[in-house]
Amino acid sequence: MKLLRVGPVGQERPVVLDGAGNLCDIGEREIDGAFLDSGRMARIRSALEWGDLPVVHPADQALTRGTDLRIGPPIARPGKIVCIGLNYRDHAEETDAAIPAEPVVFMKAPNTVVGPYDEVLIPRESVKTDWEVELAVVIGRTARYVETDEEALACVAGYAISNDVSEREFQLERGGQWDKGKSCETFNPLGPWLVTPDEVGDPGALGLRLWVTGDLRQDGNTRDQIFPVAEVIRYLSRFMVLEPGDVINTGTPAGVALGLPGTPYLRAGDVMELEIDGLGRQRQTVGQA
Amino acid sequence: MKLLRVGPVGQERPVVLDGAGNLCDIGEREIDGAFLDSGRMARIRSALEWGDLPVVHPADQALTRGTDLRIGPPIARPGKIVCIGLNYRDHAEETDAAIPAEPVVFMKAPNTVVGPYDEVLIPRESVKTDWEVELAVVIGRTARYVETDEEALACVAGYAISNDVSEREFQLERGGQWDKGKSCETFNPLGPWLVTPDEVGDPGALGLRLWVTGDLRQDGNTRDQIFPVAEVIRYLSRFMVLEPGDVINTGTPAGVALGLPGTPYLRAGDVMELEIDGLGRQRQTVGQA
Repeated sequence: MKLLRVGPVGQERPVVLDGAGNLCDIGEREIDGAFLDSGRMARIRSALEWGDLPVVHPADQALTRGTDLRIGPPIARPGKIVCIGLNYRDHAEETDAAIPAEPVVFMKAPNTVVGPYDEVLIPRESVKTDWEVELAVVIGRTARYVETDEEALACVAGYAISNDVSEREFQLERGGQWDKGKSCETFNPLGPWLVTPDEVGDPGALGLRLWVTGDLRQDGNTRDQIFPVAEVIRYLSRFMVLEPGDVINTGTPAGVALGLPGTPYLRAGDVMELEIDGLGRQRQTVGQA
Repeated sequence: MKLLRVGPVGQERPVVLDGAGNLCDIGEREIDGAFLDSGRMARIRSALEWGDLPVVHPADQALTRGTDLRIGPPIARPGKIVCIGLNYRDHAEETDAAIPAEPVVFMKAPNTVVGPYDEVLIPRESVKTDWEVELAVVIGRTARYVETDEEALACVAGYAISNDVSEREFQLERGGQWDKGKSCETFNPLGPWLVTPDEVGDPGALGLRLWVTGDLRQDGNTRDQIFPVAEVIRYLSRFMVLEPGDVINTGTPAGVALGLPGTPYLRAGDVMELEIDGLGRQRQTVGQA
């Protein structure tokens, strides 16, 4: 299933995309931790299969360029956003970092999350705003001291595209901890959909790509992750309790501005497009805070 | 005013402490960002002054040792917890760190928050769990690119005691970013009260102390903060949007286990007691996860 939230900022309504491209009401107020942990996903799946869900936006109006139907982030507000740094060998190399012996973990403020087509703002006084296409994992069941990969993957509600927008000067040159360059407003476009694991298949075999104003900048595959999804969940669950509604950004492949010749950081007017196999596309115009 | 939440975990009820030590109902479901930003605090203050709030726990039953009235954290669930590292000269020195030229910023998972008398758990495989008494600032109004100290302090809903419990091996020896040692379950006792700024006076002149099993370990004063509260808020608001309900842990003075002879890290059975002038006391027993 592909779950999403459509409507103006702060008034999004949860819907599901059916096989014909219609958006159908799921009878829920929110897609959040409480819903993801409720078991009501099974009821929605069954109703969707039987064609029992009311269409709120027919296919020809839904998600078509030119309509004014905004897509919000697929979950309302994560409890936390945990990020894995340097999780692709080629990205570690392009940033002159050592290949990590165990996952590098940092955090992003939950109020950085915006919709997949919303504007991304370059912070004031920023000259090094950068992009990062990532596979996001949305947690659906509490993960605490998880021991097996099977148990870890059972905690996943679904997957989505995430743009882990980063300000490199704030991150790397302003006092030692990365969070400072990761939490600026609009710095986490998420979506368009939360795709359930059954539709995604192997999360370790997904192509992911990012273009800036038409130039392909990142072209990787999650098979090159140093620490795959199940291992990341097991690892994190030893250091914190992951809860339904939490988001894990699992790292980015090579091709960020920081690692490219001439470091072509984002400027107002640039357009980022992101894509992950089976998870849809994002498109953000860059503005100025 | 001193606002607090009493009751079993997950079923806490917001109350206010009156001048006689009674706990009075404030007619709110939660103390959270929406409430703090609502302006209803003024109504509660006025009703309290007029004696119009119903007493739910009389003074002789409230907050007395031996009663089973649990005090929860004074806010339900922060949107984020932002922490300032090395914000006291003596603490920077004891940890062999340079005096920071600008605030060091890291984050703590919001689900680390527990009540001021709740048990703190040493994580599995941990041998370096440490304490940090800190002045916590609770945000009551959105702070974004704040320019003046006056505007910054107007964003404060109140202050509380925070114990920024830290696992030093996870923080410093496991991959470079501190968050990994800051986000374990139960790692942020908060409270007992959210004290409004009018009662606190100058947040830059508060004594703060911490004992471990009776031994005074930390004995500092917020006047020794390198970056005082108003400056911290102004600074953070350039890198992220602070929202009502967010918590800032403003750093700890010298005296943590990491900096003491013999590094006497916490063990199960230890008792931490914390105190900040005008903000009450905390007491946690240390257990094992």
